[in-house]
Amino acid sequence: MLHSVTQRIFDSIDSLVLIDSHSHINPHSPASYSLADLLGYHYYTELAHSSGMPKHRIEEPGISPREKVERLFDSLGNIDNTVQWSWFIELAQSLFGFQGDRIDKSNWETVYDLAESKMNEPNWDAQVLSTSRIEKVFLTNDFDDPLEGFDTNLYVPCLRTDDLVFHFAQASVQSRLQKATGCSLGTSASVRQSLEALFERFIQRGARACAISLPPGFVPKSHVSHGSSVQIALDDLLQRGMDASEDHKQLIAEWMFWSIAELADANNLPFDLMIGVNRKVYPSGVYQGQDLYDSRLSLIQYAGLFNAFPKLKFPISVLASVTNQELVDYAWIFPNVLTHGHWWYSNTPNYIRHDLRGRLEAIPRNKQLGYYSDAYKLEFILPKFKMYKQILAEVLASDFCQAKKWSEDRAIELGKQVLRGNVESVFGI
Amino acid sequence: MLHSVTQRIFDSIDSLVLIDSHSHINPHSPASYSLADLLGYHYYTELAHSSGMPKHRIEEPGISPREKVERLFDSLGNIDNTVQWSWFIELAQSLFGFQGDRIDKSNWETVYDLAESKMNEPNWDAQVLSTSRIEKVFLTNDFDDPLEGFDTNLYVPCLRTDDLVFHFAQASVQSRLQKATGCSLGTSASVRQSLEALFERFIQRGARACAISLPPGFVPKSHVSHGSSVQIALDDLLQRGMDASEDHKQLIAEWMFWSIAELADANNLPFDLMIGVNRKVYPSGVYQGQDLYDSRLSLIQYAGLFNAFPKLKFPISVLASVTNQELVDYAWIFPNVLTHGHWWYSNTPNYIRHDLRGRLEAIPRNKQLGYYSDAYKLEFILPKFKMYKQILAEVLASDFCQAKKWSEDRAIELGKQVLRGNVESVFGI
Amino acid sequence: MLHSVTQRIFDSIDSLVLIDSHSHINPHSPASYSLADLLGYHYYTELAHSSGMPKHRIEEPGISPREKVERLFDSLGNIDNTVQWSWFIELAQSLFGFQGDRIDKSNWETVYDLAESKMNEPNWDAQVLSTSRIEKVFLTNDFDDPLEGFDTNLYVPCLRTDDLVFHFAQASVQSRLQKATGCSLGTSASVRQSLEALFERFIQRGARACAISLPPGFVPKSHVSHGSSVQIALDDLLQRGMDASEDHKQLIAEWMFWSIAELADANNLPFDLMIGVNRKVYPSGVYQGQDLYDSRLSLIQYAGLFNAFPKLKFPISVLASVTNQELVDYAWIFPNVLTHGHWWYSNTPNYIRHDLRGRLEAIPRNKQLGYYSDAYKLEFILPKFKMYKQILAEVLASDFCQAKKWSEDRAIELGKQVLRGNVESVFGI
Repeated sequence: MLHSVTQRIFDSIDSLVLIDSHSHINPHSPASYSLADLLGYHYYTELAHSSGMPKHRIEEPGISPREKVERLFDSLGNIDNTVQWSWFIELAQSLFGFQGDRIDKSNWETVYDLAESKMNEPNWDAQVLSTSRIEKVFLTNDFDDPLEGFDTNLYVPCLRTDDLVFHFAQASVQSRLQKATGCSLGTSASVRQSLEALFERFIQRGARACAISLPPGFVPKSHVSHGSSVQIALDDLLQRGMDASEDHKQLIAEWMFWSIAELADANNLPFDLMIGVNRKVYPSGVYQGQDLYDSRLSLIQYAGLFNAFPKLKFPISVLASVTNQELVDYAWIFPNVLTHGHWWYSNTPNYIRHDLRGRLEAIPRNKQLGYYSDAYKLEFILPKFKMYKQILAEVLASDFCQAKKWSEDRAIELGKQVLRGNVESVFGI
Repeated sequence: MLHSVTQRIFDSIDSLVLIDSHSHINPHSPASYSLADLLGYHYYTELAHSSGMPKHRIEEPGISPREKVERLFDSLGNIDNTVQWSWFIELAQSLFGFQGDRIDKSNWETVYDLAESKMNEPNWDAQVLSTSRIEKVFLTNDFDDPLEGFDTNLYVPCLRTDDLVFHFAQASVQSRLQKATGCSLGTSASVRQSLEALFERFIQRGARACAISLPPGFVPKSHVSHGSSVQIALDDLLQRGMDASEDHKQLIAEWMFWSIAELADANNLPFDLMIGVNRKVYPSGVYQGQDLYDSRLSLIQYAGLFNAFPKLKFPISVLASVTNQELVDYAWIFPNVLTHGHWWYSNTPNYIRHDLRGRLEAIPRNKQLGYYSDAYKLEFILPKFKMYKQILAEVLASDFCQAKKWSEDRAIELGKQVLRGNVESVFGI
Repeated sequence: MLHSVTQRIFDSIDSLVLIDSHSHINPHSPASYSLADLLGYHYYTELAHSSGMPKHRIEEPGISPREKVERLFDSLGNIDNTVQWSWFIELAQSLFGFQGDRIDKSNWETVYDLAESKMNEPNWDAQVLSTSRIEKVFLTNDFDDPLEGFDTNLYVPCLRTDDLVFHFAQASVQSRLQKATGCSLGTSASVRQSLEALFERFIQRGARACAISLPPGFVPKSHVSHGSSVQIALDDLLQRGMDASEDHKQLIAEWMFWSIAELADANNLPFDLMIGVNRKVYPSGVYQGQDLYDSRLSLIQYAGLFNAFPKLKFPISVLASVTNQELVDYAWIFPNVLTHGHWWYSNTPNYIRHDLRGRLEAIPRNKQLGYYSDAYKLEFILPKFKMYKQILAEVLASDFCQAKKWSEDRAIELGKQVLRGNVESVFGI
């Protein structure tokens, strides 16, 4: 009984046309050109590497896409148990028309050729979006992205601020900011002006959010914007770059973050916080497969921020499932705290299930943004969303239809709101 | 099969008459006078506020109960997915005879009137207790509560010690203590005498526990009671009140806490520890909707306490589910550590289920106090206990009847002990 | 349907002959002589004590095995809900032929006698291994264990290094090391030589791993081995023993640990890390029932170690389930990080289930060492493994056969690899 209720709910929410509220899609090259683009996704290279394949085999310069894929299949048999691999099987079936249920050394070339012929069709990206029932995809744009040459109604700009906050000591970041805004950067007031210029450009181009990923130890703090301590630290970073003192780098990170929050607030732009990642924990790892974390963090680090900006919406993602209950409870109490998807290391079924149940049963329904793909290529949106929708359907069937005696229609309404309605209302679409 | 076993176990444990071992009931006004008393419970006001309703709409002085409820229903539709809302539906059905399964802007007045007519019946509080099958309710009394004018056999006094430990710097607390005990407070010895007088009065009036809620960072420490450092700190608090140094406030908090543990030990009074809350994290929140927490705590902070008082029973509640495994394991090892209910932010099904299974499978059965309501009004005891009993029945059916091949009778016996037997033996009833 | 799939998978993986990759078996006395050996296991004495039995009743010198067991049954009724007790019932049924499903004060002597007659059979240990389908058992040998007088092909030596790392200040440890290796210990170079001698002897005798249990706060650090700071600290420990400074003890612990990692690396010997225990948190507890923990740790403390030894395999166990997601993710990224069993306080079904699902769905299948018994007596291997195999079968049935449409054979293959194949490949058997 439960099984068939789940199936009907799944079918219903799976038929919805959705908006993907966070991705790393390149709007100038949104879909893949070969299987190497898909299996080059860090989820596969890092797992192949972790299971025993040397990094140089994977990242050797100059190898062809086909050669790269052939090599990877030496190790991919070791990861056929993983949900990450299930995404690949799912997309091969749904997007390429692959008929089998295993892809390994014996048949990878068939799939390679099948994919290639599909990808060579002129409207492949549109086909993928259509099959995936996705009508808008949020991007993650560098602050100096010109935001031109693509349809911002389909690919919605989002201002990524990591470089500004955490890498402002780099000369390249400083010069990119100058170039992007035409402002000189000598004073805190002029840096602030350049930030305002960024926001203005992003807003003009239809941006719907700004976003940042944050290390576990970060604690947002306010500093007097034109005070002398900010100016002294800023001078140090402008003059000495990466040789500036760590204290000054830290102060500027805090000041930048707070300034961006002020501008997001002034521009009514939700500020996506993705909390908890440590970069380059494994520096010898493959590209994008070097980051891990320290799960010892608390959202109490952000209490000052949430109190200071009561009107600014903070869609929040946490990296570790042990932080999810705090997220549930901060969203239960703070009007401006929203839950946003299931991020990265918590984006596997065991953690999604536990975290989702905790959210659905205790947070107002209009504050839950169910899912985003975080995808680098369009093809991954479908299988990732499908995984989430399957779990959502199971939870709606068990925790609402069975436990609360809700009708299926009522459960489906909740599913729709979490999957689509709240994305519209929160991001103003 | 599993479903029908669960149902039979539920029916059996649901028929038991229980004792509620922790509540905030006011014995002079135990039940509600209108729906505003129920929907004014912070679980509803904070969720309505979090979902978008301005605080001033909720807390505007002078609005009538009916007006308050009408306003709340502008937002309560946003929380109809929550378990907190399920409690309200459940009590409306079970206590007021409401026949539907949704209460919203279209029909709230019917329920308001239904509730009002019930609540106006002269023996409403007794009716609620009888329908809820509750025969005793533990209170949470201020230390200067005269404990008079109510039946202490039904409403069991419990000495709440938060003010003494954490707010002794306040002149009002000092004067309340003096007034309640007739002792002057100049020396640590005299303060100690006043504490002894409190215990004496509470014991005389049938108190069965003392209790305290503790912030995540608190670490109990022993100080030489009549040593000069305690006296110096005490002098500072007595003379300068809230202007006393933070170090002195901290020292007195530790000394007070330890002194209370000594007196609880001497009086054989279990000491309920409710561990993990930070007060006023969101100071602009609604009344009682401002507290959150930092889940980074460990019960190792309490190891010194548990070792120092081997005969004193510590029924322990933890605020975050990530602390529950430590609680399981400290209760597994320390004879004086007991598990006590599912508190506040961990009192939702997803966390109760995970935490309960961890407890039932690894802690001696005579050390688990299953549940308490934490209710402010009698009407909430029924739905909260029912939620717990439902989950308990599911776990007994799956983890004991199915996995261990226990008979239903044997599983029900375990359920009874956890729900009722241990409350009697631990609190000496 | 799911139920019968689970059963068939269980039957299949239960028929495998396995290798137990971590135990505390004494190879000179591997099995029990009476029920007192089994119920004297700390899991029973500590739970009996926690449930109310005084320590002196349990540990009174000179009481007979039968008397000890009789006394324990005064309290064991309090723990018949626990999984630890289920292990005892299971082994009584499977190994002694006990027919009932309850053992209590009314029938314990029957079981005592049944056990005794079995244990007196000359090949009892071989019978237990055969019934348990175990063909090799890893030991945990003191560094000065002569490793003689037993079949190292059956009982595989493993070098336990806790004493060297954390207790080197003790004169007894220093003299044991001197005696075991014949090296004098005056300089860091000579201590290093003695460590090399230990490794040589263990390797010669077929050791397949070295192992250590680590407190939550430990952070591995490299020190220049022949630098003056190491020598100064070493001098302090050699001269003043336990009176040496805490800083020096800490430095030597770090230096020892790192030296052992270097030697494990040089000898290609996997280094089992068992992370998270605090010793003697409850010093008045029963024998081996005094240890607990602080769950606030992060594997980021080990990032430097994992980076420094890319070829050294680290099979890792964590004490608290809240650390398991970090373990999953470090094993997902670092090639040399492997998951190893479900340890101690996380070795109960609620935590195994959650932790196992997180592992199976996200870590390469060749990096998961499913289970070890941690047993002190052979009789416990069977019920502990059976508990794990039951949960593994359930997860394979639900998360693979049902959710991913895997065939039963394919799921069973994964089960075999996790239970047996990886033990062979990781430990070189």
